[in-house]
Amino acid sequence: MQVNGREYRAVWMEGSTVFMIDQNELPFEFKIVEAHQYQDTCHAIRTMLIRGAGAIGAAAGFAMAQAFLQAPKKGTKEFILNARYEIEATRPTARNLFYAVDRVFRAGSGSSEHAVIEAQDIADEDARDSRNIGKYGNELIKDGYSICTHCNAGWLAFVDYGTALSPVYRAHKKGKNVFVYVDETRPRGQGARLTAWELFHAGIPHVIIPDNATASLMSQGKINIMIVGADRVAANGDLANKIGTLEKAIIARTFNVPFYVAAPCSTIDLDCESGSHITIEEREEDEVLYQKGIDREGEIHEILVCSPGSHAFNPAFDITPAHLITGIITEKGIIKPDERSILSLFTENK
Amino acid sequence: MQVNGREYRAVWMEGSTVFMIDQNELPFEFKIVEAHQYQDTCHAIRTMLIRGAGAIGAAAGFAMAQAFLQAPKKGTKEFILNARYEIEATRPTARNLFYAVDRVFRAGSGSSEHAVIEAQDIADEDARDSRNIGKYGNELIKDGYSICTHCNAGWLAFVDYGTALSPVYRAHKKGKNVFVYVDETRPRGQGARLTAWELFHAGIPHVIIPDNATASLMSQGKINIMIVGADRVAANGDLANKIGTLEKAIIARTFNVPFYVAAPCSTIDLDCESGSHITIEEREEDEVLYQKGIDREGEIHEILVCSPGSHAFNPAFDITPAHLITGIITEKGIIKPDERSILSLFTENK
Repeated sequence: MQVNGREYRAVWMEGSTVFMIDQNELPFEFKIVEAHQYQDTCHAIRTMLIRGAGAIGAAAGFAMAQAFLQAPKKGTKEFILNARYEIEATRPTARNLFYAVDRVFRAGSGSSEHAVIEAQDIADEDARDSRNIGKYGNELIKDGYSICTHCNAGWLAFVDYGTALSPVYRAHKKGKNVFVYVDETRPRGQGARLTAWELFHAGIPHVIIPDNATASLMSQGKINIMIVGADRVAANGDLANKIGTLEKAIIARTFNVPFYVAAPCSTIDLDCESGSHITIEEREEDEVLYQKGIDREGEIHEILVCSPGSHAFNPAFDITPAHLITGIITEKGIIKPDERSILSLFTENK
Repeated sequence: MQVNGREYRAVWMEGSTVFMIDQNELPFEFKIVEAHQYQDTCHAIRTMLIRGAGAIGAAAGFAMAQAFLQAPKKGTKEFILNARYEIEATRPTARNLFYAVDRVFRAGSGSSEHAVIEAQDIADEDARDSRNIGKYGNELIKDGYSICTHCNAGWLAFVDYGTALSPVYRAHKKGKNVFVYVDETRPRGQGARLTAWELFHAGIPHVIIPDNATASLMSQGKINIMIVGADRVAANGDLANKIGTLEKAIIARTFNVPFYVAAPCSTIDLDCESGSHITIEEREEDEVLYQKGIDREGEIHEILVCSPGSHAFNPAFDITPAHLITGIITEKGIIKPDERSILSLFTENK
């Protein structure tokens, strides 16, 4: 996607160097970080300089390829195994990471060039899948539509295009008038900070809204469709996603607003029977109690925005039952959120 | 209510001086401000040092009484009329303000002592009504209940006790184990800043939650009852209240959580037929884009927490239809949210 008139991916590799947009500095500074060794790329994943399922997967694949390029002639095998272990330890719950590392590890047994090619393929596949999600999702967006989205499932979270935002980018490119209501997505504010940043740079009209305003807007018919991303989709179509997604899905159903989930097939976990099998991660209270930003002189501060002495409860995700979801937009097409439709993605030749 | 072991009201008058808790400094500093002349009290109302329907009404009544005490022997009438005009101009949409000013103005025609007594009566009535709301509301709260509330309808917004929080204070005082989930209430954070502050000082167990977490908590059966305040109740029972209230009412209905509104009869507007007749105030975008708080060294900063260049939409209130409300807790008892029940409050001798 374009930033300041130039085309960027969230992460890419040239020669033996991995380049990443520093998402810890966004939205206040746009900075490209170079990782010359696999250890640097590991550090970037660990410190969340790069985040989002697809982007983490691609970065991990590149890190594995870097390890092959760095490996000494003597003791290659041990070096590679150590590197693999190190890369896998950066974000131990990211499924895409293990998938990418495994693929590049196998390819590298041929030569380091094979490893690099495989890592590039993984990144390209991620971008292609996101692009296809946009192609299918675009069919749901009519000219003049207002779209509401929650959290950030844009190109920063993947290699390019993103998931929930990909249909919006496509519709905009096709010349449709679209307008996006961006849920700020407390507590971490991924909507206000990342989605708004993406849309601003893509030149797509939008406003940030407090999470509290969605029902009011929907009750007035101001939102035509809601599209969100997914952290995990269970085999029965239940959805685990950023806290607040369940709330939005209920509100959308109440006001008959179509509620779509955009996610590549890699997000679907066939081993997970239903949402009740997904454990909700509880994160540290400081994410609610404190906020980080810049003052009017451009200086960064982290401030307490709550009453001192009070504690906060910070569940990171919630579970939206399949019956509240209108459809799942995948790279293979739009499907109903039920077991039969989901299984068909993996068994039929689409 | 108690702060640091001492009993306080949000606003009170001793001699010719009006005392107010400075709500612009909360929750980071607890400061009592003295207003020696009616002009000082006007300034406090205008700058929102004191806010909330009941508290504004009481402060305005005290200001009118101060004017009578200050009035010169010659030109008394003109002085009083000017003062009245000035007080009424501080917050032109606050209904309680006009009601209080009018009562004290009339009483003052006897003597300035009558004006002071009338102003004290208004404050006492507000405290008594809030206390009675607590008495009735307490009956809804069982031992071990978890209560969810939105925005701040505590004693800071009234003279004492508050509305939505008054039943909680009563239940706690009666020895019931209660726990409060405090919606942080973006964008202005009245939950995180004021409700949490009140509960902390009352020693009532609570946690601040992101507004996004309510549905998740209710889906897990963690909330037994929701009680909110009201900015205005229409004759048919529709409710205008802080943005997010509609969203919470829908979620509560979905998970069969009783949803109550706590409000004195003075909040009910019989001239307002239904919620569709209430205009929603749109406030400045900076309330969403910026946040104010203290850093770890105790220094206050106002920081941008959104992507620079993006705009925000900030509707201050929303309308909750009567059919989503379980009941209205008034100082005269708990009623159903329909026209007949509401009218009976004003016609029957309760």
